[in-house]
Amino acid sequence: MYDLLIHGGTVVTVDSADTVLTEAWLAVKNGVIAALGAGRQDKPLPAAADTIDACGGIVMPGLVNAHSHLPMILFRGLADDLPLMTWLNDHIFPAEAAFVTPDNVHAAARLACAELLLGGVTACCDGYFREEQVAAAVNEMGLRAVLGQGVVDFPAPGVDDPSRHLTVAQDFIDRWTDRSPLITPSIFCHAPYTCGPETLRQAKAIARAAGVLFQIHAAETRDEVRRIQYLYGRSPVSHLDHLGLLDPATLLVHAVWMDAEDIARAADTGAGIVHCPESNMKLGAGIAPLPRFLESGLTVGLGTDGCASNNNQDLFREMDMTAKLHKLAAGDPTAVPAATALKMATIEGARAIGLGDIAGSLEVGKRADIIILDSRHPRLRPMFNPVSQVVYAAGADCVRDTIVDGQVRVRARKLVEWDLETLMKPVETVARAILPPNRADRPGIGAPDPDGDGPHAT
Amino acid sequence: MYDLLIHGGTVVTVDSADTVLTEAWLAVKNGVIAALGAGRQDKPLPAAADTIDACGGIVMPGLVNAHSHLPMILFRGLADDLPLMTWLNDHIFPAEAAFVTPDNVHAAARLACAELLLGGVTACCDGYFREEQVAAAVNEMGLRAVLGQGVVDFPAPGVDDPSRHLTVAQDFIDRWTDRSPLITPSIFCHAPYTCGPETLRQAKAIARAAGVLFQIHAAETRDEVRRIQYLYGRSPVSHLDHLGLLDPATLLVHAVWMDAEDIARAADTGAGIVHCPESNMKLGAGIAPLPRFLESGLTVGLGTDGCASNNNQDLFREMDMTAKLHKLAAGDPTAVPAATALKMATIEGARAIGLGDIAGSLEVGKRADIIILDSRHPRLRPMFNPVSQVVYAAGADCVRDTIVDGQVRVRARKLVEWDLETLMKPVETVARAILPPNRADRPGIGAPDPDGDGPHAT
Repeated sequence: MYDLLIHGGTVVTVDSADTVLTEAWLAVKNGVIAALGAGRQDKPLPAAADTIDACGGIVMPGLVNAHSHLPMILFRGLADDLPLMTWLNDHIFPAEAAFVTPDNVHAAARLACAELLLGGVTACCDGYFREEQVAAAVNEMGLRAVLGQGVVDFPAPGVDDPSRHLTVAQDFIDRWTDRSPLITPSIFCHAPYTCGPETLRQAKAIARAAGVLFQIHAAETRDEVRRIQYLYGRSPVSHLDHLGLLDPATLLVHAVWMDAEDIARAADTGAGIVHCPESNMKLGAGIAPLPRFLESGLTVGLGTDGCASNNNQDLFREMDMTAKLHKLAAGDPTAVPAATALKMATIEGARAIGLGDIAGSLEVGKRADIIILDSRHPRLRPMFNPVSQVVYAAGADCVRDTIVDGQVRVRARKLVEWDLETLMKPVETVARAILPPNRADRPGIGAPDPDGDGPHAT
Repeated sequence: MYDLLIHGGTVVTVDSADTVLTEAWLAVKNGVIAALGAGRQDKPLPAAADTIDACGGIVMPGLVNAHSHLPMILFRGLADDLPLMTWLNDHIFPAEAAFVTPDNVHAAARLACAELLLGGVTACCDGYFREEQVAAAVNEMGLRAVLGQGVVDFPAPGVDDPSRHLTVAQDFIDRWTDRSPLITPSIFCHAPYTCGPETLRQAKAIARAAGVLFQIHAAETRDEVRRIQYLYGRSPVSHLDHLGLLDPATLLVHAVWMDAEDIARAADTGAGIVHCPESNMKLGAGIAPLPRFLESGLTVGLGTDGCASNNNQDLFREMDMTAKLHKLAAGDPTAVPAATALKMATIEGARAIGLGDIAGSLEVGKRADIIILDSRHPRLRPMFNPVSQVVYAAGADCVRDTIVDGQVRVRARKLVEWDLETLMKPVETVARAILPPNRADRPGIGAPDPDGDGPHAT
């Protein structure tokens, strides 16, 4: 007797053989994928306590968002289309200083998790300040996550004294080690230009001692490359390598400006990469050399980045954008095919963030992180090739059911345990404080009824 | 007494002053926007036969998809990630020759309209073969559309004798002139490399005589530029200009490879442009010089292109992609701001396809083509700036209601008049004929249950 049986769909396993099973079924026991079968309509289905009919839809691994800043949904659309430094210094940093309180982080992270679960993301790798509250929120919402407390060389929300960042990060790791089956602690050094060499070395030492992932934004903009070159006489990745920071438990996020030597260094050391095409496009940062990463055998996941620079957490769009962007960059429609983008958003992302053994594909023995796409959706019809459909046609709106660790978190497009209003309300309250609805400079508010006499007759 | 009253939302009018009205209402009478009001919560709302509570959501003009090939949803995902000529010659052309029958075109166009309406598109500009059946389908589904019968210099579905293309196109225009308030006939010459100079001249003469739009794919790929240069000693746009084809009722679709002189010619003559970034990216065609188009005062709409080269009809994604792609191309996050992308997908698209006087913005006296985005959607929360939200955060899934010409076509995410199953079934049948489910070369089908003994035990 299984706990959960999913049947009647096309199962895109994303296993090493790219197996796709039609008219298939999948059984879950104790949070683990216990059995898979296909093409045996003459045999009775195994018994289970709960059953989901996939109704001809696509059953696939839950998506892995390999780079997020969940609480930043607080600032979604607060400031767009601005020069990078104006955006950061005049909008994001002041808003963070004023509003990144424990309660606000907790509320924002919960709503961000709702968006992820409803959009088919079952695991994410996050880094921010007050990550303690992010962890509590993610754990409550039932997502799988690798979470890193942010480290910089200046004061940040929750850490007034910069000398305490590493202690706070160490405490976070200690508190979340073996505390929840869903949460894996990590450490998140913001970037080579916000963390000096000694901070970076010490943070990586903490990560190594605890056996956790070391995340860092690296080589995101040309400006960063110039700064690091000026300060240390090396490229950002070379700088990190010379500090002894690169290994398979280091995650280089963005990696837009990587030359051949940087790529070789990353590949030799086994460091993981997260590609964030939408964020890189929106900030005008550039195009990461993804085809060269893949040729070099690097493990590359996909991330949405925070909501202030995307501004959604739809990993389906990110897959689509990845495949299309690199076809454009190469002038070649065969570049980065759909299957590659799908792997980046599932198994490769899981590997990059250290969850490759338990998540990212549908295989017997893996944790049951599964999503079901609705076959009755006009965007998915007709369906010749489920992988093409997932990458080029589907969107977050095609996700009908989301299962994490064997638990059904979204069923028929609704969160099973949570009321959306309850999750949205506190975030709305914070948003009204960030930018009061009646403030004159609030964007996008036009003139009220000009003559003040109600209806404008034709 | 109005026919329809929409109240309680933020109205993004996309009028010439970029007016955004909060706590606003909008009244419709006889298919026309009859009145608009805002900020007068103390006054009673006007009476109406039907009322929609926008519940704090965004009320905006329906999106205008300025370039589609609706029946091509038949081939969605049939062949991706292939070199352009392999894709066309080995997959799309044979499939078109065999399956573009009147019934199949009708069924596919109906399902395509369902996707558009559910995704907030209220008007499209389409070109394909057997456009007669497209027109019937669009009219039944209740979308607004400019529709052009396809013209090429070789046989095509429905026209075995190439000398008859112009006659068929003329007949189509005659039959659909003043026949439906929703349908405006047009002519669609496929491209300068598939239509010779005489065909182009005659087609434009037919369009001028009938006062209809002349659509043409132009300057899509570098290859096309080389071919036209070789054949006629000019760039594609210069070639069309020398044939006397450019004027405000000519629509240049794609326009990727336009040099300064081409842009000046288009601007001088008032020709419209359709930008199709996702299609251009997927086929590796290149990046159209959108910022230069806008500086030159050209009217530029947005199009999804057909489903075989996108593979969805989500115009929200197209807006997002437009803004992000041109920030990337310029290396400047201030390039192509959200408001510009929104205008391209609404009023500018309407102008480009000749519907600017009746559609594309919410203004008293215009036809009531309106969509309402769901404020209870976690992707739209919090909302600081509705325009940013529409472009960077929303997707087709945020559309709750769609009104075309004053008629509610989608209500609470469901087609009012149509059952989706009924629309999908005939398209499924065609798809099974195009690529039988059991054919060995069908993509993405892996091994069945390998040992043939049912469940794989852990």
